[in-house]
Amino acid sequence: MTRTVLESKSKTVVIGFDEPFCVIGERINPTGRKKLAAELEAGDFSTVEKDALEQVACGAMVLDVNAGVVYNSNPDPNLTEPPLMRQMIELVQGLVDVPLCIDSSVPGALEAGLAAAEGRPLLNSVTGEEERLEAILPLVKKYNVPVVAISNDDTGISEDPEVRFAVAKKIVERAADFGIPAHDIVVDPLVMPVGAMGSAGQQVFALVRKLREELGVNTTCGASNISFGLPHRHGINAAFLPMAIGAGMTSAIMNPVRPVEMEAIRAANFLMNHDPNGGEWIRFARVLEQVEAGTPFAEASKAVADASGGRGGRRRRRA
Amino acid sequence: MTRTVLESKSKTVVIGFDEPFCVIGERINPTGRKKLAAELEAGDFSTVEKDALEQVACGAMVLDVNAGVVYNSNPDPNLTEPPLMRQMIELVQGLVDVPLCIDSSVPGALEAGLAAAEGRPLLNSVTGEEERLEAILPLVKKYNVPVVAISNDDTGISEDPEVRFAVAKKIVERAADFGIPAHDIVVDPLVMPVGAMGSAGQQVFALVRKLREELGVNTTCGASNISFGLPHRHGINAAFLPMAIGAGMTSAIMNPVRPVEMEAIRAANFLMNHDPNGGEWIRFARVLEQVEAGTPFAEASKAVADASGGRGGRRRRRA
Repeated sequence: MTRTVLESKSKTVVIGFDEPFCVIGERINPTGRKKLAAELEAGDFSTVEKDALEQVACGAMVLDVNAGVVYNSNPDPNLTEPPLMRQMIELVQGLVDVPLCIDSSVPGALEAGLAAAEGRPLLNSVTGEEERLEAILPLVKKYNVPVVAISNDDTGISEDPEVRFAVAKKIVERAADFGIPAHDIVVDPLVMPVGAMGSAGQQVFALVRKLREELGVNTTCGASNISFGLPHRHGINAAFLPMAIGAGMTSAIMNPVRPVEMEAIRAANFLMNHDPNGGEWIRFARVLEQVEAGTPFAEASKAVADASGGRGGRRRRRA
Repeated sequence: MTRTVLESKSKTVVIGFDEPFCVIGERINPTGRKKLAAELEAGDFSTVEKDALEQVACGAMVLDVNAGVVYNSNPDPNLTEPPLMRQMIELVQGLVDVPLCIDSSVPGALEAGLAAAEGRPLLNSVTGEEERLEAILPLVKKYNVPVVAISNDDTGISEDPEVRFAVAKKIVERAADFGIPAHDIVVDPLVMPVGAMGSAGQQVFALVRKLREELGVNTTCGASNISFGLPHRHGINAAFLPMAIGAGMTSAIMNPVRPVEMEAIRAANFLMNHDPNGGEWIRFARVLEQVEAGTPFAEASKAVADASGGRGGRRRRRA
């Protein structure tokens, strides 16, 4: 049974075939967020703090941290990202107690994040590109952490799912050469926009099933890519996530502050028999009631969590 | 490729592995609707008319017609149902041009419906019960119509999905003895409430896949059963339907007047590559915009259909 174990200082999260779907919060990322990028360059971390607290309140089980700011004052990310990554990791893990996902294209920033992170973070990411394999897999081995493996290589992103599967397989094999087990590889099979490629959904569902059955790996994706460019994106996302979960997808990097998508995931967990007696669903239904009455999602989530002992119904019963 | 062909006087609907999910409107059914039952006994068909028009406006592709009224004046359904079924079928097919699903536990009512229906209706239903097989399969053969096969038998409804599969297989084999092909059997694997049985969702997904792969049959279900007794039922239904579609379910008997469930189905059709270029999704997004602005779903659906030529974008382009 494939289990990818992540840890914060005191909390363990398992990504696995028999576990509730793992929601990795994507918000702490300045890419495409000009305001956040400017704040970070100015040393203002207030948005990072807010994003950390809100995402965890809404149900993120892991937080992605990306420090990919291109500074106006210094455009070399190899110099600017590593110290910023360290600073952001320290800040976030001081605020919330969930495992982190260290996200960068700069190997030095990944290593700075690994050195700063408590517990067992997820590294994001390696690809099938030769240079990347050689730079990242030694870090994965050295720090004994799991890693996201994105199925593109030196030829780019293939539209052919068989090629993407082959790239994933190559990464798993190369990792094995370093002594890294398959259960520490979380493959991102790459989600194309269904508006541009009608087979995009079916490709992902088939790939996830095959990755699970043939390579025994957990999977993740940038879920909202599926609906890129379409009207009523949340409706597409909210069908895509249950379908992907039904096909065997075990995690996604996504925005957990959207109640529509989180509702779909919690319902899918219940339908996969990963919510014994529906306790989590019933608790979430109370959150939805407050949201329908006008309370913001993060606030409603926090209020319901506080009312059931501050940590959710299931944990409370265990205490 | 399994294709179950239904026809009204002038319209063909195909239930099939490569077709959009077939929504069978369940509303025209007095079971559990006391007001409708009383109306029918009094000869008032206004609710039937409204339900027929609304369901088709909202996207039902087939309408189920059930005449199961227990009259206060005459409690024998063998006497009361056949003429009422005939009357309701004639009324409905005079109002809307979609194939019908003739739904009764009374064989005489099924035959009355078959005699009255134009085109090629779906018969609902046969079970694995001996008496039922002997009564219904000759009708199916005589009228050359497809039939819903519910996977319970003389021992009742099994909680074991393997038993339900075996019952479905028996029905398919018995039908073959009558010369009825598997593509004219639409199996209902029976959906249990997930609140009572945590494995209910997974059972259905596994059964649908197996029924499709091993028996080559189309499938249907009473979709809303899955959420029986739970809060925020629509949220469970709206995750269940895409997951069932992803597993290979090809139709459901359900309430099409609920935008949440219809949104989930239309998104799932798109993700299954059964909505070329997303034309249907983009049209439906316009309906959702009007619903969000306060217009009732049926009215918004009709307005958007009228604006795109009265019959939906796709058909319009063909004309």
